[in-house]
Amino acid sequence: MAIGVFDSGVGGLTVLRALRTTLPGRDFIYLGDTARLPYGTKSAASVVRYAGQAADALVGRGLSCLVVACNTASAVALPELRSRYAPLPVVGVVEPGAAAACAATRRGRIAVLATEGTVRAGAYERAIRALRPQAAVVSAACPLFVALAEEGWTEGEVVDLVARRYLEPLLATSTAPDVLLLGCTHFPVLAEALARVAGSDVRIVDSAATTAAAVEGMLGAVDGTTQGRGRLQLLATDDAARFARVGARFLGEAIEPATVEVVDLGG
Amino acid sequence: MAIGVFDSGVGGLTVLRALRTTLPGRDFIYLGDTARLPYGTKSAASVVRYAGQAADALVGRGLSCLVVACNTASAVALPELRSRYAPLPVVGVVEPGAAAACAATRRGRIAVLATEGTVRAGAYERAIRALRPQAAVVSAACPLFVALAEEGWTEGEVVDLVARRYLEPLLATSTAPDVLLLGCTHFPVLAEALARVAGSDVRIVDSAATTAAAVEGMLGAVDGTTQGRGRLQLLATDDAARFARVGARFLGEAIEPATVEVVDLGG
Repeated sequence: MAIGVFDSGVGGLTVLRALRTTLPGRDFIYLGDTARLPYGTKSAASVVRYAGQAADALVGRGLSCLVVACNTASAVALPELRSRYAPLPVVGVVEPGAAAACAATRRGRIAVLATEGTVRAGAYERAIRALRPQAAVVSAACPLFVALAEEGWTEGEVVDLVARRYLEPLLATSTAPDVLLLGCTHFPVLAEALARVAGSDVRIVDSAATTAAAVEGMLGAVDGTTQGRGRLQLLATDDAARFARVGARFLGEAIEPATVEVVDLGG
Repeated sequence: MAIGVFDSGVGGLTVLRALRTTLPGRDFIYLGDTARLPYGTKSAASVVRYAGQAADALVGRGLSCLVVACNTASAVALPELRSRYAPLPVVGVVEPGAAAACAATRRGRIAVLATEGTVRAGAYERAIRALRPQAAVVSAACPLFVALAEEGWTEGEVVDLVARRYLEPLLATSTAPDVLLLGCTHFPVLAEALARVAGSDVRIVDSAATTAAAVEGMLGAVDGTTQGRGRLQLLATDDAARFARVGARFLGEAIEPATVEVVDLGG
């Protein structure tokens, strides 16, 4: 059975990319709820409802594991999804991201960059404090980063200026963070610009690699008899052409629009 | 009966503001489909479906006129909405915006700044050419402007830089436009920055005032016996607090969150 990966749109393809690198022999089925993106500016009630509909569509196809690759959905809908599909393992990106940040920090000062919805939910702060109770955690909503990542403006003057505007208030304090945790799957494509603005003292981490490690740990070692790369199925709830064009930037490889299946979640 | 105004979110409040200025004695009911915004990056099929559900909710409350204040919905869903609700007058923002641009241009060179969906639909080009067949029309999708307007970054270095990046390719040609038509209801809050970047030779117009004039023309002169300002009802499909906070910037006056009614469109 395939590993299901769900996101509000194309950002979760950064997590899918890490999963396929860690578990190359596994089959994956990815669903981007592009008809209703973004989740990051919407209420918890709307996100819980949308995430449930999207997860139903994936689980209905038969899964070995469901990965909630959307930070906002992980932050607000994970308990609901876990109880709905038990005993199916449901993995979010918040705990793995928190673990990555706690492993990377030297002084225990972590800044979480995320969407409005994720920041409001406070899930990263809770997950970080569960691992490292003395950590100093600040969170900042950075909605422009989503638009920049989708537009493909990942290098240059505009992204540097926006990054400075969001980061400088965080970095200027006497308790400046030594780790920036990218708490939105759109943000890894901006990592180089963020590193340039934050300076070499600040480490930048995201949830992708640790989420992949968590899934690997949960499903056990990959079957040694698997030959070659597993199958990848891509689903979206809106326009296949846009999903392919914008998504390629996040997946790190070209996507053929004809291979993207458009599904209707009844929204 | 009230005048219904529908938008994908808060941007249409710029049109509502002009309508209330032109028709101060009228009652208005505004619906922002904030649970599914933005429409501008979504397929025509999704926008037609969402617009129909939102319009149904408004029309069901009894209207004298329906104003589709969302450019993307006006560009792709207007014929469908007109035939569905005939004989109710249904006014979009594309024809009024095209009329404003044709009235403002001296050399017949117009640049339309809009969302991806509006640009793809080509509705502004058609409406402008219907009024002025010799006009030279170019269109540019400017998705970052939506994010900047929602974030409230309407002045300063970031908006100037983003505006330069979108406008300079348009302005650098030998057939540079003398009118910029703001084909998205989010963009009027950025008008000062756009004017600064475009220079004093370029006039900036939007659909709000001409849409209000079209509605006034359609409904006839306002009843002379009306006393004081008409009633305003605000509906949203998601979080009232965010609607009130971000919407105030577009309406030009404070919005009390408790006055915003949250409605479920069954999505």
